[in-house]
Amino acid sequence: MTLTIIPIEGIGEVRPGDELAVLFADAAAAQGTPFADDDCLVVTQKVVSKVEGRLVALDAEDRDARRALVDAESVRVLRRRGDLIISETRHGFVCANAGVDLSNVEAGWAALLPIDADRSARHVRDALAARAGVDVAVIVSDTFGRAWRLGLTDVAIGVAGLAAVVDLRGERDGLGHELMVTEVALADEVAGAAELVMGKDRRVPAALVRGLDPRWRREASVRELVRAPGEDLFR
Amino acid sequence: MTLTIIPIEGIGEVRPGDELAVLFADAAAAQGTPFADDDCLVVTQKVVSKVEGRLVALDAEDRDARRALVDAESVRVLRRRGDLIISETRHGFVCANAGVDLSNVEAGWAALLPIDADRSARHVRDALAARAGVDVAVIVSDTFGRAWRLGLTDVAIGVAGLAAVVDLRGERDGLGHELMVTEVALADEVAGAAELVMGKDRRVPAALVRGLDPRWRREASVRELVRAPGEDLFR
Repeated sequence: MTLTIIPIEGIGEVRPGDELAVLFADAAAAQGTPFADDDCLVVTQKVVSKVEGRLVALDAEDRDARRALVDAESVRVLRRRGDLIISETRHGFVCANAGVDLSNVEAGWAALLPIDADRSARHVRDALAARAGVDVAVIVSDTFGRAWRLGLTDVAIGVAGLAAVVDLRGERDGLGHELMVTEVALADEVAGAAELVMGKDRRVPAALVRGLDPRWRREASVRELVRAPGEDLFR
Repeated sequence: MTLTIIPIEGIGEVRPGDELAVLFADAAAAQGTPFADDDCLVVTQKVVSKVEGRLVALDAEDRDARRALVDAESVRVLRRRGDLIISETRHGFVCANAGVDLSNVEAGWAALLPIDADRSARHVRDALAARAGVDVAVIVSDTFGRAWRLGLTDVAIGVAGLAAVVDLRGERDGLGHELMVTEVALADEVAGAAELVMGKDRRVPAALVRGLDPRWRREASVRELVRAPGEDLFR
């Protein structure tokens, strides 16, 4: 089945209290690609944090204040090197600077991660059902680095209505052997795919992914993607 | 710009010496989606390893033989836990079992990673230009785990004609600030996106990605994605 990934354009600056579902449904309709049942909407963390008021005043030049903010957002620091801090957030995410972000934010402010991005995703999903009458899965995405590979990829930090991880355990491969590769990080791959039409240099805070296997639709949580510290070989 | 990801179906079992460019071009044309200039073809490691004869006899039940093979394919072992070995391959990839793979391979055999998957990608790219007259980028993909997140994602292990990493350094974000998030692991996100139409339980060894930003076309190498051991905080 062919997959189509459509950027949602024409969203202006968002403000605390804005209803993303309305903004996105209007923008998608205006560009001739209205939401349909079984679509997946990928929304970047930045706009979610903005509408949820997860902004704090921060002088970007004040390194001590930056460090203190990152420490406050971390439950465990894994590594420090210069200004870079790799830490674990209270959500269990391991990422740079605990997700504190200064890009695409007004000068003098920093955006923090949503408190519960599963809840944020569910809110958008429910509002789309209520306002636009469509059954759409939602992923909240953010941009994380990786331990052993250069470059950043977008991954899921919240999910609603779509499996975060697809378990293929016990299914057969093309030659009839039981599969050894079993658990696919579906929501992370969808988030990364959506990033391809967003770009960091353009103002596209959301994309619509159409054509995902409907067997992957279910209630879910991003916790499926979080490796417990005790099962982690690299913390 | 909308991105379209099209599975290439109807490829049967491949054999050492088969020309993948011919198989894929024929299959894509047969299903009504012939290659076009600026498309990106994503090919799984498994079929590349098969046509390149990177298969070795291995009794999957013989744990000592499995371990010896993984050790032989590794330049450095990072962690062992039970039968799981996380190691660095001679390409610089950090992955489970040095990429030695028993799924989708005939019983009694294991597939090893291509010796140089950039070269494999370039070969397919050049053969598509010669045989089908199209200028197509090629990514060879494989399925890797991550240090801190559960589930596997497809990433690039070889690339030709498309940036592996896109550097946005110095570009401006939507509000005119210089971007802090700068390097996007483009080829990894494209590989992961392609996986969404392949699935591990179906026999789809390739997908065509149409609509990538043409500014990302250039000569490239997967080495752009390999973090040098000396710059690595988690090895």
